[in-house]
Amino acid sequence: MELTGQSIIGYQRGKKTGKALSGFNPSTGQPLMPNYYSASEEEVDKAVQLASQSFTPYSALSGKDRAAFLRTIADNIDRLGETLVERASSESGLPAARIRNERGRTCSQLKFFAKMIESGSWVDARIDHAEPTRVSVPKPDVRSMLQPLGPIASFCAGNFPLAFSVAGGDTTSALASGNPVIVLGHYGHPGTAELVGMAIQNAALKCGLSEGVFSLLFDAGHNVAKALVRHPEVRGVGFTGSRAGGMSLMEVSNSRPEPIPFYAEMSSINPVFVLPSAIASRGEAVAKGLHESATTGMGQFCTNPGVVVTIGDAERFISQFVALMSATADGTMLNQNVVSSYRRAVSERSKQPAVKVRWSAATFAQANTTGCSAGTAVFETDARNWLDDPSLQDEIFGPAILLVSATNPEELLEIARSLNGNLTATIMGSAEDLITFSDLAEVLGKKVGRVLFNGFPTGVEVCEAMVHGGPYPATSDGRSTSVGGRAILRFTRAVCYQNFPDAALPAELQEANPCGIWRMEDGQFVQSRLPNG
Amino acid sequence: MELTGQSIIGYQRGKKTGKALSGFNPSTGQPLMPNYYSASEEEVDKAVQLASQSFTPYSALSGKDRAAFLRTIADNIDRLGETLVERASSESGLPAARIRNERGRTCSQLKFFAKMIESGSWVDARIDHAEPTRVSVPKPDVRSMLQPLGPIASFCAGNFPLAFSVAGGDTTSALASGNPVIVLGHYGHPGTAELVGMAIQNAALKCGLSEGVFSLLFDAGHNVAKALVRHPEVRGVGFTGSRAGGMSLMEVSNSRPEPIPFYAEMSSINPVFVLPSAIASRGEAVAKGLHESATTGMGQFCTNPGVVVTIGDAERFISQFVALMSATADGTMLNQNVVSSYRRAVSERSKQPAVKVRWSAATFAQANTTGCSAGTAVFETDARNWLDDPSLQDEIFGPAILLVSATNPEELLEIARSLNGNLTATIMGSAEDLITFSDLAEVLGKKVGRVLFNGFPTGVEVCEAMVHGGPYPATSDGRSTSVGGRAILRFTRAVCYQNFPDAALPAELQEANPCGIWRMEDGQFVQSRLPNG
Repeated sequence: MELTGQSIIGYQRGKKTGKALSGFNPSTGQPLMPNYYSASEEEVDKAVQLASQSFTPYSALSGKDRAAFLRTIADNIDRLGETLVERASSESGLPAARIRNERGRTCSQLKFFAKMIESGSWVDARIDHAEPTRVSVPKPDVRSMLQPLGPIASFCAGNFPLAFSVAGGDTTSALASGNPVIVLGHYGHPGTAELVGMAIQNAALKCGLSEGVFSLLFDAGHNVAKALVRHPEVRGVGFTGSRAGGMSLMEVSNSRPEPIPFYAEMSSINPVFVLPSAIASRGEAVAKGLHESATTGMGQFCTNPGVVVTIGDAERFISQFVALMSATADGTMLNQNVVSSYRRAVSERSKQPAVKVRWSAATFAQANTTGCSAGTAVFETDARNWLDDPSLQDEIFGPAILLVSATNPEELLEIARSLNGNLTATIMGSAEDLITFSDLAEVLGKKVGRVLFNGFPTGVEVCEAMVHGGPYPATSDGRSTSVGGRAILRFTRAVCYQNFPDAALPAELQEANPCGIWRMEDGQFVQSRLPNG
Repeated sequence: MELTGQSIIGYQRGKKTGKALSGFNPSTGQPLMPNYYSASEEEVDKAVQLASQSFTPYSALSGKDRAAFLRTIADNIDRLGETLVERASSESGLPAARIRNERGRTCSQLKFFAKMIESGSWVDARIDHAEPTRVSVPKPDVRSMLQPLGPIASFCAGNFPLAFSVAGGDTTSALASGNPVIVLGHYGHPGTAELVGMAIQNAALKCGLSEGVFSLLFDAGHNVAKALVRHPEVRGVGFTGSRAGGMSLMEVSNSRPEPIPFYAEMSSINPVFVLPSAIASRGEAVAKGLHESATTGMGQFCTNPGVVVTIGDAERFISQFVALMSATADGTMLNQNVVSSYRRAVSERSKQPAVKVRWSAATFAQANTTGCSAGTAVFETDARNWLDDPSLQDEIFGPAILLVSATNPEELLEIARSLNGNLTATIMGSAEDLITFSDLAEVLGKKVGRVLFNGFPTGVEVCEAMVHGGPYPATSDGRSTSVGGRAILRFTRAVCYQNFPDAALPAELQEANPCGIWRMEDGQFVQSRLPNG
């Protein structure tokens, strides 16, 4: 497949006239061809108008037809083979093995949603039958189900060139629930975006979908992002990225005359509370696991553990952990912006009087050959300083950890209570600890989307129960998750039909339940009826 | 029960020092004693802090315990008997029979939610069991369920002194899902608010709940509203009222450093499409029903039909309708603000060149004895003018109707496509029409929360399937409903537990399913297990 550098606008390609950007290999420092061209205002509008026109026919497709589309996308991505792996790896500096895993996850996720919409019960169909003889007012027949919103703008994330990008979570859940999608590629991996974008465009063509169900735009700046969020026909936004980026788009979203769902996943320090029993029984294993979780992928995960809290004398455990961190080879970060932000943040934290630098890789001060290499860092502070300085809760995106020592369980709890919203929090300890420290689990449950026990926050399982979200500033809307079964809900709303003739109802709500889905009928969950039922 | 005029702050009462307001009888023009005192900044903060402190213990209660609280509230409201009916009727000008109905609806709604949280399946519990032997990465045990958000600010609506006020929909769904609530009373019916507020305070005391689960504040201006929406400990807002009021609070909400769910139900013109077959087969009945729906309660419903669209020659039907409207006696509106807004809006619309005044009650120009009386109005325009003038979509809150005539089905569809978001839309016709005009139902389904067939939009059934919401500007957040089963979702978010020991999980997620609820286990809906199952 030849890369052209042009946007994908419905079944056409964009112009080569806008400001150009190019991919960049952070491992070699070389730019990657071809150039990619920023979409013009007209192109943004065209993509959105096409999406808008395709909304009615696309949303009217059955779940099975939409599932076939998602499965075709997965097949097409698989068929890109090593071309995709090599390009994504070159553009991100991430090892080929990681990219292959991420591709597996991306395609599994497409199939996970395909299965969900094939079986169809996700629409939360509810039926309350009429009671025409009820006194004093007859009860009407009322039926409702979730329906899609319309064109959705989906933003690629820098740190996941596949799983949170063109065919990533937001695109997949939006398409699954019946919404057209306009994707904005990330400047860091435009070639990967184009390859996946063509896979989706070809799938849409093969499935005979209306033009506009999918578009992919590029931008060397921020104009396209803003134009998409501002566009009156855009009905929802999914973003994964930095806090600054998320907040600036949230402002644009807030300034719209018509408010829309705006989901930005922004920043998280994913605190890990290591209780004495964990250190006593398996301190070395915890230190090893934590080191692996904190440094895999150069710490460039939204769920990367950034803060580790201990109680009392934990020096043995800490020394083990610091030894592992300091023995970690430097690695390549995603791009120059990420590495320079990381270096600046590490350098600033190093200067904070409340913080002791336990270890910081020497290469920080130096430019290496490509400019994208960096090393690990470990900082230390105590509960008092933590509680006094809210800036210690700012995320450092990369392999840096802040150790916070509490002198007693009450201080540990105070640290938990002081936390801003996070994606995850982890407790390392014994089952008895969860009883002794029951307040800790309780407090953390109010601060995060996911509480882990004796696990590591990186590695987000795609399953029905997963929650990858959390209170602000982890996300802009803590009600939603961007991973897992509930992600299909984010670009939907319930629509209700009162006293409709059966034939005019969506199939999911027709009396005979032709879709064979689970429904709530007169307050009871009812499974699909048998043919003679 | 003696009215004191003081706010209810947890288990205490507010000061009598703030700016005073008093209830007002719109039928007699007399103020109603006692005076009510605006809450001070300190009182607002105290109510929120108490709510915040009560959040952990209140949210930890079982569904059964919270249900007992809701049922006690309903009992206490019932026990207020005619005292409540008389006060609410005096303060609103609404007839006693209507208030009794509304009380019945309010108490039924409390019991509807009580039943839902007693059975408990609403929490959407999901369990994905571990697969420790999975290659290449072991699958963790992941469980999640919906949890409450924290203190919720609930605003009383002027037009429903009971059902959308102190113990109304938002308060009930917030309390049901485990959130403390701070209610702001409406200036129009403070005495009703105090009576119901005391019923809730007494129920909280009787159930031994932590102080702060409920507070009720008053305000002669807008400071308390803004302070509540701005307060960092407030985690969600429910508002039903005017578009101006909703928009101004939405701005305050958007300016918060930490975004929160903000649900304002604001304005809706609830278009009714009367197709030729309906006129031919039962035009007179439709005219009568429409007249009743448009004038009951002086048209002061969010679901009041404000626009009626016909095709071709509908003059016979229109004349019948206009005759009924013009024969309607003047009535008392809720308060002086409402009546003066209504008069101003009717007078402005009368002057629009695109609009013909078909009927307008003569009393509009005159002040009557109490200043709160008004009559009906019927305006007429055609599709072209409708499409050219978006201001014709502005709601006139009261018994005024705009008739819009389309010359053919395509124009009818254009009108439908031009609609802003609404709570409801109605199609009057035959079952065959829904096939012939299938685009109409499709288009309307994308514009509203509820589509009715051969019914009238007023009268919102409280049932699992009801949707009382819709795209902007009907509401600020079209994903949610303020009435029906799904209203319990609005102040919740999913929280996930990974690899938690069974005993440390919320009961709803424990392996043995001790709550006996429906859950999604490994992707399958599973009912409560039998004791030996």
